[in-house]
Amino acid sequence: MTDTDAPISSDVLPSDVLPGDPRFFDRAGPFSVRDLAECAGAEIVGLDDDTDRTMLQGVAPLTMLQGVAPLQAATAGEISFLDNRRYLPLLAGTRAGAVILAPAFRDKLPPGVIGLVSKTPYLAWARIASRFHPLPPAKPGIHATACVDPTARIAEGVEIGPFAVIGAGVEIGAHSVVGAQAVIGSGVSIGERCRIGAHVSVSHAILADRVTLYPGARIGQDGFGFAVGPSGFETVPQLGRVVIGHDVEIGANSTIDRGSMRDTAIGAGTRIDNLVQIGHNAQLGRCCIVVSQAGISGSTELGDFVTIAAQAGLIGHIRIGEKARVGAQCGVMSDVEAGADVIGSPAMPFREFFRNVAFLRRLAKKDGKGEG
Amino acid sequence: MTDTDAPISSDVLPSDVLPGDPRFFDRAGPFSVRDLAECAGAEIVGLDDDTDRTMLQGVAPLTMLQGVAPLQAATAGEISFLDNRRYLPLLAGTRAGAVILAPAFRDKLPPGVIGLVSKTPYLAWARIASRFHPLPPAKPGIHATACVDPTARIAEGVEIGPFAVIGAGVEIGAHSVVGAQAVIGSGVSIGERCRIGAHVSVSHAILADRVTLYPGARIGQDGFGFAVGPSGFETVPQLGRVVIGHDVEIGANSTIDRGSMRDTAIGAGTRIDNLVQIGHNAQLGRCCIVVSQAGISGSTELGDFVTIAAQAGLIGHIRIGEKARVGAQCGVMSDVEAGADVIGSPAMPFREFFRNVAFLRRLAKKDGKGEG
Amino acid sequence: MTDTDAPISSDVLPSDVLPGDPRFFDRAGPFSVRDLAECAGAEIVGLDDDTDRTMLQGVAPLTMLQGVAPLQAATAGEISFLDNRRYLPLLAGTRAGAVILAPAFRDKLPPGVIGLVSKTPYLAWARIASRFHPLPPAKPGIHATACVDPTARIAEGVEIGPFAVIGAGVEIGAHSVVGAQAVIGSGVSIGERCRIGAHVSVSHAILADRVTLYPGARIGQDGFGFAVGPSGFETVPQLGRVVIGHDVEIGANSTIDRGSMRDTAIGAGTRIDNLVQIGHNAQLGRCCIVVSQAGISGSTELGDFVTIAAQAGLIGHIRIGEKARVGAQCGVMSDVEAGADVIGSPAMPFREFFRNVAFLRRLAKKDGKGEG
Repeated sequence: MTDTDAPISSDVLPSDVLPGDPRFFDRAGPFSVRDLAECAGAEIVGLDDDTDRTMLQGVAPLTMLQGVAPLQAATAGEISFLDNRRYLPLLAGTRAGAVILAPAFRDKLPPGVIGLVSKTPYLAWARIASRFHPLPPAKPGIHATACVDPTARIAEGVEIGPFAVIGAGVEIGAHSVVGAQAVIGSGVSIGERCRIGAHVSVSHAILADRVTLYPGARIGQDGFGFAVGPSGFETVPQLGRVVIGHDVEIGANSTIDRGSMRDTAIGAGTRIDNLVQIGHNAQLGRCCIVVSQAGISGSTELGDFVTIAAQAGLIGHIRIGEKARVGAQCGVMSDVEAGADVIGSPAMPFREFFRNVAFLRRLAKKDGKGEG
Repeated sequence: MTDTDAPISSDVLPSDVLPGDPRFFDRAGPFSVRDLAECAGAEIVGLDDDTDRTMLQGVAPLTMLQGVAPLQAATAGEISFLDNRRYLPLLAGTRAGAVILAPAFRDKLPPGVIGLVSKTPYLAWARIASRFHPLPPAKPGIHATACVDPTARIAEGVEIGPFAVIGAGVEIGAHSVVGAQAVIGSGVSIGERCRIGAHVSVSHAILADRVTLYPGARIGQDGFGFAVGPSGFETVPQLGRVVIGHDVEIGANSTIDRGSMRDTAIGAGTRIDNLVQIGHNAQLGRCCIVVSQAGISGSTELGDFVTIAAQAGLIGHIRIGEKARVGAQCGVMSDVEAGADVIGSPAMPFREFFRNVAFLRRLAKKDGKGEG
Repeated sequence: MTDTDAPISSDVLPSDVLPGDPRFFDRAGPFSVRDLAECAGAEIVGLDDDTDRTMLQGVAPLTMLQGVAPLQAATAGEISFLDNRRYLPLLAGTRAGAVILAPAFRDKLPPGVIGLVSKTPYLAWARIASRFHPLPPAKPGIHATACVDPTARIAEGVEIGPFAVIGAGVEIGAHSVVGAQAVIGSGVSIGERCRIGAHVSVSHAILADRVTLYPGARIGQDGFGFAVGPSGFETVPQLGRVVIGHDVEIGANSTIDRGSMRDTAIGAGTRIDNLVQIGHNAQLGRCCIVVSQAGISGSTELGDFVTIAAQAGLIGHIRIGEKARVGAQCGVMSDVEAGADVIGSPAMPFREFFRNVAFLRRLAKKDGKGEG
């Protein structure tokens, strides 16, 4: 892989286009600045209350906004967003009609640009962008090619896609969407307004409301359980389920095994990224964040609001306290206290980890000189 | 992600229910204590031989058992299991009719509870739990929606699920199950009593008997092979296969690439967990264990009974000796001797790894004080 | 898992067979040595120019070759390949009719064996093996069971497999193949001669020509984006796309999220292995290599010709310069300069990493003695 001076078969990619490509995204609106500010809980600055004109220049502002765009691309009919001090130069030059930003930056608004000031600007952005580009609603109906067991109970407003397979006794709540080729095993219960992606498989599971499973997620298969027998391994029956709380999201190709003697449980509001592994009997609290390629071994418990960063691994049968944060690639071999920040493999407090790194670097340099 | 004091949108999950939810699991039985003891190879204690009454109290015991349950939930008609000294308090308070346990704990049985004493209590548990909850047998037949090539040879008793695709010349042995939407490529051979999960794809592969592939497993696709050409990478044809021995299990969304010039081979009895990557030409011995998110690079060989823990990574073209154990997150860059235990990245003996960790911690603390 | 002395339920696997099992691989040919040398840009040695006889022995050589085989198995009608000094003993004993090898080894050719000498022997091998075993062409036609939206535009020569789902407004270029049960979301554009594997899902994406997606790849789902709201996390709409350049390959069960406000982009010629995660807004240059189970977080950029080894992880919002190489299991927390080689977690130069490892080992040993 060293001959990298060779010419390349094709040019680089075309430059970015604006977000919201109409081939893929519907757009609602237009919405007035006042509507948007209200939906986002933001304070409007730079708009004359009486006339809806900007105060600074007296020019008629485009107070009806058509869509969202980044600072460098937005036009007068669009609203943009500033989330980071390093993008202040882009703010100075923006042609956006309005910008969502934190109170600290309100004085940096260029003349003629309306500000939507929020102490939680990213949340304001989430709400306003969702206003313009709402999640497409379910298209009620069962596709002609889907294979739905006659004993399944499908509530009103449910959408079931092509070649989906719905097993015996399945329950699906109102306005949920089951994507193309999803396979829902016998007895599974799915709440209301859930979104089951393409190629998802679910078995031995109970899902609450507004659960989203991204394509290829695997929920409810056997955990990794076996005993050593005289002629090889023998499987231990996995007799639990997977129980998923309200508003949980589980990323593409992630895998959650069902419990062996109790349930594997994912608390309400928890967000799990792509390619995450959750072992049997694991218990995740509410509003945890588990980033991509992390792994949580069997019977380990997470309190509420725990964050597990990318590629971290937790051994089995430990407990991570509420609000603890586990760093990327961390290897956690024992309990972590509530509120603690750990990193490294084996895990240690952030401070200790970086002190060790710096110390080792310094010593090794000295050593290199002394012996060189 | 710091605003975690906010109220939460829904309550925590309902508490656990008993294992074996009848929505998902069939139940066989009841079985007598004697039957179960025989099937598990366990010795019965606490049962009067003549009368089938418990010796200690003379009360009629429930010697016909209905099912399995954990110590804290089991009732007189159920059998439970003690596998760990720290659960002895639960044993003391259990209401289970019988408990499987090791000889060391036989004296801890509460009065009136029958003991099934085994030197391999987890194996005894596996067998007794399987007795109550046997794997559902294949339901012979090809689903009306499946797409089976007329040249495929399907043995008796095979179950083929909805929308499964079976290619030309495929062979499937007796009593195997092919799940919904599995895709079996042309020429693939599957042995008897195999279980192919939903959404599995298999190509260029030979499977022996009793192989289990969990949902989303990817078997037999091209390995990652290419050469640097004048105008970019050029693919090297991958002309080998994947050969899988008897009784192998491969977890959900794991990927096993076919060989380039020889076969990728998985030895009999080996168990591979979820999200594992096995590169082209890799050779795994018999009864290896590969835990979730581990990766084995191309042409690397594992002897028999090797254990690779979660998230470990092995570079290509090395050999791991028989019964070696590779720790979680270990990075193995060279051969590992038979029977060795290694951990760390790069891999080193367990003892050295933990000595280094402790040493660095101590030195860095001293250093911190000296400079503080 | 210590009882590993137990007998095993079945024998080891049968020994390897030759590559190119006719159940799975078509074979073209025979081809003359001259044809093959020309296709590979190699120099022929050991062949008498006038008579097509080998110079050394004057015996009629088998200058028409039937196929490829490894050195130890090839017969007089086959061509083989030497890529590594340690296989020189195999060369000495080979019965191959011809061998591809580097100039340094030309003197090691046994008598009567024709040499195809190339400065890029692996590339020569790729081309000659591809000549004998070309990629099977698309079999034009839409399978009767496929579900194709009437507004999709399918070019000539396209193959669409069983149960594939093609959404509204999809475009598929000439001679592309869409595998069984692939799901192509509305509006997606696929170029010419692409190969979309079984169970792939693609949404919100633009694919150039000759893109290969292996089974189970997930392209275009929502990135991991949410804000903290008063009653839990709130989703931030992901309004970008995934844009994939010419000749890109993406491995089995890998996941590439679409951008939030700009596109996630994969440069032409880049090769991504299995189980790789690419976050929203990431930008990969041309001809990058990303090995299995690596993860690239959101908004991170790779220059051209970057190599990311297996299980490496990159945090978000950093830049990896052209031709940099990131080692296996590396944890990259900040920018990497063009051409740099880094490894370790956190990442450091190769030299420093191995110096630290050696240093720590030495010191810990001393310390162990002093305190022992």
